[in-house]
Amino acid sequence: MSTPNEARDARHRQRKDEIIAAGRRCFRQSGFHAASMAQLAAEASLSVGQIYRYFTNKDAIIEEMVKRIIDSRLVYMEETATARNLPRLLAWRQALDEDDEALMLEVGAEASRNPVVARMLAEADSRMFTHACQNVKKTYPHFSDEHIRTCVEVFAVLVEGTAFRRLTPQKASAERLFILYQQLTDLLFKTEEK
Amino acid sequence: MSTPNEARDARHRQRKDEIIAAGRRCFRQSGFHAASMAQLAAEASLSVGQIYRYFTNKDAIIEEMVKRIIDSRLVYMEETATARNLPRLLAWRQALDEDDEALMLEVGAEASRNPVVARMLAEADSRMFTHACQNVKKTYPHFSDEHIRTCVEVFAVLVEGTAFRRLTPQKASAERLFILYQQLTDLLFKTEEK
Repeated sequence: MSTPNEARDARHRQRKDEIIAAGRRCFRQSGFHAASMAQLAAEASLSVGQIYRYFTNKDAIIEEMVKRIIDSRLVYMEETATARNLPRLLAWRQALDEDDEALMLEVGAEASRNPVVARMLAEADSRMFTHACQNVKKTYPHFSDEHIRTCVEVFAVLVEGTAFRRLTPQKASAERLFILYQQLTDLLFKTEEK
Repeated sequence: MSTPNEARDARHRQRKDEIIAAGRRCFRQSGFHAASMAQLAAEASLSVGQIYRYFTNKDAIIEEMVKRIIDSRLVYMEETATARNLPRLLAWRQALDEDDEALMLEVGAEASRNPVVARMLAEADSRMFTHACQNVKKTYPHFSDEHIRTCVEVFAVLVEGTAFRRLTPQKASAERLFILYQQLTDLLFKTEEK
């Protein structure tokens, strides 16, 4: 049986989830800059005052949203977006979650004008990058840290460039891209200098 | 000596340039969605009515702005961002114009919610892509069109991914990235199948 404290914590978590879900819908629709706390409260069927009990401001909502997107990307990276699977994911432009991708584009656009969001993006990227390096190290323990960082950077460029290009129609053959991305992966994992 | 018509055309062009410049500043500051025609008019020191004599709505201003960014990118591609120079530009994350890049990120974020802007982005990408393919064809006339499209797509992914990653600190050595991007360029321009 749950104690009163546990029940309160569960309610608290659920309310936060609802605010984040409402935030995501508002941000997708209007962008961070145009979405107001009032609009967000209406979307969550709460008062603005209630929202402030959970998040001190809009930036705090964005921060929690980004944290959750990165959490789910880390799981995806572990399970699906391994170096072995990347050529296929890139060539066929497979997205983990289209809403997440659109929101991260929004984060990028906002980061270029808002230093608070720029810091969030830098931290999110740093978490992803460190995690990806650790994953590569597990499979290729003889690689130098410097070489691993180079590989991960190129993969990050390819993954983020592909996410951006998903906004426009694909103009090259996915089959040919697949072959090329496989060759590129081979290049990355065979060029370690001694 | 200029005729009255020529003088009027020159004034018309200058006014349009001023509105685009004001639009760029407003869009950088607030994003497309939040920037209003009133804010834009104030920034250009014009009345809203005057703005409407040049552009039917905010989307028309965005469209002209995107057209001009692509025009300058095509010149850049021709003169600087050739296949030969790309490894260096990518490894050191060199930007043509940081404002242009931030505005194109904003175009991407807006494209994911506004079909008019999505169409603009698709047309802009199509112009860039066609032009890049023609450039490659000039240097490698024996390459198949299919192979050229594959190369250009990979380059586009690398250029756009690098632009996005410029928002966060670089974590790999530019010198090592340079070597890798050179190998990748060699791979692209040597893997044409007969």
